[in-house]
Amino acid sequence: MITIALPKGALLTDSIELFKQVGLDFSAFLDKSNRQLQISDPTNTATALLVRAQDVPVYVEYGQAQLGIVGYDVLREKQPEVANLSDLKFGYCRMSVAVPKTSSYRSSVELPPNGRVASKFVNCAREYFRKIDLPIEIVPLSGSVELGPITGMSEAIVDLVSTGKTLKENGLIEIDILYESTARLIAHPLSYRLNQSELHNLITKIRSLIDS
Amino acid sequence: MITIALPKGALLTDSIELFKQVGLDFSAFLDKSNRQLQISDPTNTATALLVRAQDVPVYVEYGQAQLGIVGYDVLREKQPEVANLSDLKFGYCRMSVAVPKTSSYRSSVELPPNGRVASKFVNCAREYFRKIDLPIEIVPLSGSVELGPITGMSEAIVDLVSTGKTLKENGLIEIDILYESTARLIAHPLSYRLNQSELHNLITKIRSLIDS
Repeated sequence: MITIALPKGALLTDSIELFKQVGLDFSAFLDKSNRQLQISDPTNTATALLVRAQDVPVYVEYGQAQLGIVGYDVLREKQPEVANLSDLKFGYCRMSVAVPKTSSYRSSVELPPNGRVASKFVNCAREYFRKIDLPIEIVPLSGSVELGPITGMSEAIVDLVSTGKTLKENGLIEIDILYESTARLIAHPLSYRLNQSELHNLITKIRSLIDS
Repeated sequence: MITIALPKGALLTDSIELFKQVGLDFSAFLDKSNRQLQISDPTNTATALLVRAQDVPVYVEYGQAQLGIVGYDVLREKQPEVANLSDLKFGYCRMSVAVPKTSSYRSSVELPPNGRVASKFVNCAREYFRKIDLPIEIVPLSGSVELGPITGMSEAIVDLVSTGKTLKENGLIEIDILYESTARLIAHPLSYRLNQSELHNLITKIRSLIDS
């Protein structure tokens, strides 16, 4: 039996819709009264695990799930050893540099050398500023990154932007985009290579659905 | 003006109560309709930041807040460079090793060598198993750690236990305690040394409150 790791949060509804279209119904996870984190589809051909987005690649890397859906941002930040199979074309967002509207910075290179950038995505942020050759101190936060510039702790933030509403509410504007992100189908490399539980069949179905 | 970093979640209510008793009222943070992450007390003598528990030491370490309240578990896991001033005697919980009730393990040393332990507290877990000299692979998860043993990905978990309800609901039992944790008052070391904004006054008041 195939086990699939599904991410809580923004990508869940589209992920469940996708599997429904290839015959696997995990919509029980969308029921607000549901407290289960592991369910089987009604035909008993697959199991789904409901986990935090960052944990999806962990379950897939350890082979506990053969397949998973996760945002490209998580793959880019954590660099897990999983097979990145398909761009699922939903869950679009971008990893951006943002600064207070009231500041004078309108591009990343204008940020002061040895300035501070607050981010949940410390690896992505570090890589980006190294590439543009600007020495920056990364302040690692786990939430409400917009508080960095508001409190004066950092000149800028690197964060995931989807509608831009949070930035706007906090008086911040995007000045650069590191990369764009969408949901990805990932697989446990060995299970994929060995075609365990006829994994290829399911993947082919998903791919043709995405292409159509 | 003093800035104080307060942790979202389990410690918030008691933290706000503590500061209220020394004359600083941040109870606006308890109002469910509140969306502000930074407020001043009505007398305008202090500002409070509402941040994730793990981010409290970050704000204090960078001197953005001179004081903060955070669980000992976060200090133990992250080892931030802050002054650990007082045990506030609330927010009691313990960092424990737990296994499925159905397993045969009743003590950490009985766990199989090269087994797996899932945890959000990877540093605490690694240090503990190194100390008891048991080679263990730590599986880093960011939430729902109890899924580790349920799915068979790990033999055990290391997690924070307060009432024990989550463990019970998931068929897990505690077999060892790494350490006990309570809320701590922390300070930015330099601000504390320089007695910025008469920090010592406030700290003395809090300490005598705790001792009484």
